[in-house]
Parts: sequence; structure tokens; C-alpha cells
Amino acid sequence: METYDLIIVGGGPGGITSAIYALRARMKTLLIEKAGIGGQIAVSDIIENYPGFPSLSGPELMQHFEEHAKGIGLQIKYAAVKSITKENDIFNIALGKETLQAKSVIVATGAEPSKLGIPGEAELTGKGVSTCATCDGPFYRNKDVAVIGGGDTAVKESIFLSKLVNKIYHVHRRDRFRAEKVLQERIASKDNIEFLWHHRAVEVKGDQAGVTQVVVEHVETGEQKTLDVPGVFLFVGIVPSTSFVDCEKDDGGFIKVDGNMETSIKGMFAIGDCRVTPLKQVAVAVGDGAIAAVKAEEHVSEMEGTLYAGKKPAE
Amino acid sequence: METYDLIIVGGGPGGITSAIYALRARMKTLLIEKAGIGGQIAVSDIIENYPGFPSLSGPELMQHFEEHAKGIGLQIKYAAVKSITKENDIFNIALGKETLQAKSVIVATGAEPSKLGIPGEAELTGKGVSTCATCDGPFYRNKDVAVIGGGDTAVKESIFLSKLVNKIYHVHRRDRFRAEKVLQERIASKDNIEFLWHHRAVEVKGDQAGVTQVVVEHVETGEQKTLDVPGVFLFVGIVPSTSFVDCEKDDGGFIKVDGNMETSIKGMFAIGDCRVTPLKQVAVAVGDGAIAAVKAEEHVSEMEGTLYAGKKPAE
Repeated sequence: METYDLIIVGGGPGGITSAIYALRARMKTLLIEKAGIGGQIAVSDIIENYPGFPSLSGPELMQHFEEHAKGIGLQIKYAAVKSITKENDIFNIALGKETLQAKSVIVATGAEPSKLGIPGEAELTGKGVSTCATCDGPFYRNKDVAVIGGGDTAVKESIFLSKLVNKIYHVHRRDRFRAEKVLQERIASKDNIEFLWHHRAVEVKGDQAGVTQVVVEHVETGEQKTLDVPGVFLFVGIVPSTSFVDCEKDDGGFIKVDGNMETSIKGMFAIGDCRVTPLKQVAVAVGDGAIAAVKAEEHVSEMEGTLYAGKKPAE
Repeated sequence: METYDLIIVGGGPGGITSAIYALRARMKTLLIEKAGIGGQIAVSDIIENYPGFPSLSGPELMQHFEEHAKGIGLQIKYAAVKSITKENDIFNIALGKETLQAKSVIVATGAEPSKLGIPGEAELTGKGVSTCATCDGPFYRNKDVAVIGGGDTAVKESIFLSKLVNKIYHVHRRDRFRAEKVLQERIASKDNIEFLWHHRAVEVKGDQAGVTQVVVEHVETGEQKTLDVPGVFLFVGIVPSTSFVDCEKDDGGFIKVDGNMETSIKGMFAIGDCRVTPLKQVAVAVGDGAIAAVKAEEHVSEMEGTLYAGKKPAE
């Protein structure tokens, strides 16, 4: 069986960038994707912060990426990876019936925001239902939005949004935030946030153009309110797709990496949203992907170099 | 005098990305550039590894970046920054006669490859004279190239290029490499590298289409040889433009940062080629720029938050 120089798991922006770099370095490369190219970004309606493209949809951006990589020979295999193990310096990537081998691996499987599971949520995702304030906040300038969630992320993102939008309805099941005290103080200082304590979202309503209303109800009395908002931001958790790899991770399952994007397993790299990252953005995944591919190439080059160890330099 | 939320020093890909993120977050932002927008990338003839753009020139890519940022209100000031100091949480950015103030700073001044100072070198830069194997190596598939330099980078890049090109003439003034032993062994194992020890490059020749020849001479005998190559890679050092800031740097002058791109000075960030980086690439500078802008926004938000410290959260 042939051994790949590099197998990339996941076809989002990070994985495709790694493929571009690896193919240009003439590494024997395969990208494995379980569903469709694009990852989380493929569900975004508008992206305006990937430099060079002022405004386009997620699927459009990912089509540019895919065409770029296919133009230099990207091979994609559609399959789900069950496990990755390492034996004698070679990685075994187990799919269903098949096991592939590679000298290096880049894990680029992303992370999925948790869902509330309420009516309208799935249908209106990318059309007013958002999980990213940095990405989508600027679209709601001078408009009202709802924010759902009570953790650190929910509070931070609500503070961030308060500078962009007209008014925020911040909805939380409990009567206080779990967030650290300094964040609690900061959010309390914002005069355009109305807190709906003891409330949960029960339905997102919309039309062809997107979200129009969010229905919330009091968790004890069951009394309902309808918020007229064109946007609702959900910050109720995010889960990385990393259960199939057995390297060091943080408590949330995000993979720990060093500055070279290398995991605790030599020759295995992790990039983008599935790693412990300061920022979940296409731009960051792209930078990660370039670094990991170049470092994977160096790793493979080192492996091959050991074959010649001891040979005297030519003079 | 008005105080900016953020001043970005340097208008390359990283600085412009920071501007896009900062402007979308409605930070009061100014970008200061000493010469022209684009940085090092503006001298590249062809770029094929910034995802989404399969092939374009450096100036074309930077025009897309600049238009993107200007479309959302980027202000550019053309001036050289003399120094940056911090006083009472505010940064003073000294230009010639003028001093500007900001709550946060991103240093994105890049790094400049050292030059040999030989005839033809400057004129043919970007037209066959390259300082980046990752960027330009793939353009010389099945062709012959010259590599100049004897340090770790020169040896690593020569090994990398040996897999892409037909043949390498590796030119070095001394009779051995200074590179670490494992690299020496690895380069010695490559059978398509001819070593020209005791030689230095004295001239790059070319025509309208680019480089055609490199003239080298023996450092002791003065005997000259002409190498017929369409490409020459110079790895004779790289110098970051960081002398105007007084934060922690490595021995080469590259700025040390943490995973949030923050320097040893709180509120000051460094991104792209001027930081201690695993990879000097547009893709990496873009990822860095996004991270630094978001973290700068958090820093400014924290500063403002302290005004309200002690105020009880709304209930």
C-alpha cells in the first residue's frame, strides 16, 4: 500500500490551505473530508473579513479555495476518519473498512457550535442566527439583536456587540452570569443591554429575508415575550471534532499545539477551530494551515534524512 | 489631541488585516506606513499560495487588500515612526515633528532580506532573484537554480528546493556550512545539488523575461564561472524593522510574542515577519493580524471597563 507524505483530515479553510502548501512542496498529499468542503464557513451567508474578498458568501469563498487547491492537484477522499494511531513513525488513518498510511497528519476538523434545538434555529442559521460576533456583528449596526447564553463567551461577545448594535436583549436561564467578575462588571456598565434573566429562547421566527423575531419564555412562569430582532447570537457552547485522535487536549476537547501547530504526537499537527486557539476565524485557520504544512514537510524531510545519517557532507 | 483606540505600524498584509478587523469592531484606527502599501509582498512577481487567489502578482494582491480595507474606512498616514513609548496606559507614537496617541499598538513592520549588493540583483528581484523557496520554488520545476548562502536557512531551503527543481548550484564563500550537523548530512545526501565551495556571486544577468545567468567567482583565485539558471535564491540574512520599539526581542531583533500576538508590553502586539515566527508568509501574517486586532480590542475594552469597576451588575 502506498504511504502518503501527508494526510489532512478536514476540508475547511485550514485544511485546504495546508493542501495548497503541501502540493506546492510536491508532497504526496490526500485530504479526507466526511461531508462537504468548507466546514463551518460553508453555512455563513456573508463573509467580509477574509482579506482580499470584501464581501461574499461562505460557499463562494470556499469555492475559490477548492478551485485553487484542485488547480494544483488536490485529491479529496470523502470518508469519516475513525481513528489515527502511530506505529514505527507511520500514521495509520482508519476509515470504515480501509486504513490509509501517512508520514504526517494535519487534523483540521473544526468545531461545531452547540445548538438549542428550537424551531427556526437550523433553518435560519446564516440568515440571522449567528454564533460569531466578530464575523456577523458588523451587519447589525444600529439594529437590535438578541444574545443567548451565560458563560464567558456569551458575556464577552455581548460586550463586543454592544459597541456595534443599537440594543441587545441578553437572554440567560439563570439570574446571574457564570462569567468572571471583571466581565460581569464590564457588561453591567453597558447601557444598551437589557438583561432577560430567568429566560430561555423557545423559537426563532423569520421570513425569506431572515430572522424577524425571537420568542423567549420565563423558565419558572412560562410567560412568553417576543423580541423584534433581525439577528440572534447563540453562545451556548462549542464542541471540537477531535474524539478520534488521542493527543493532548484541553478540558473542552480542543487539541493543544505548539507554535509550529504540532500536537503532543510528533508529526501530527492540528489547525484552525479544533485546536486551542486565540480566535476562530478563516484568516487564522489559513495561517495555521500554512505553518502546519511547512512543518509537516520538514518532519517528512527529517524522517527521510535519517536514512542518510552518518554520510559525510560532499566537499 | 484625539487618542486612537489602535495605531497599526506597517501596511503589509498583516497590518491591513488588523485594520479590517479593527474597523469592523468600530475601533478608532489609524494605519501608519512609511513608504507604500504592501511591504515585501509588493516586490513579488507571482503569488500562488494565498488561498482563494490561484495566481496573481504581489501588487495585485495588495491592491485587493487595500481596497477591502479602504471600503470600510481605512485611514492611512504616510510617515516613519521614530519611537513608541507607553505612559499611563497610553502609547505615544513619535513621528517626525508629531506625536500620536493610542490605547493599543500593532507593530507590523516586516523584515527585509539582506542584499549582496551586486549588479543585477535589485533590478531582477521578483524576476528570478528570490529570497523565499516556499513562495517561488514551485516556479522552477525541472529547471536549474542557484542558491547563495551558508547558514541554516540556506541549507534548509536548498534541501527543500532539491525536491522541486532539476539541479541546484549551491554557492558558498567558505569550504563548509555553518548549519547544524543533521542539516549538513541531509544536504549531502541530495544528488542534484552541486556545491561551489569558496565561491561568491558577483553578478546576476537577465533580460526582459528575467534572470538568465549568475556569475560566480572563486574567493581566492578570482576565477569566474557563469551558471545558466533562470532563478537564483539568496539566503544571506534577514533583518526585521523593529529598532524603534523597546520590547523583548530575540538575538536577530525579531519581536517575541505570546499566542495572542502580545509583546512584553501590555497592549502592544507584533505580527507577521517582524515577530519571532515559524513562517514568513502572507497567510501567516493575515492570521496574526486578525488575532492581534481582536486582542487589541479586548485590551481597549478592558481599559475602558476599569472605569466602571465596582459597579454592581444589573439584575
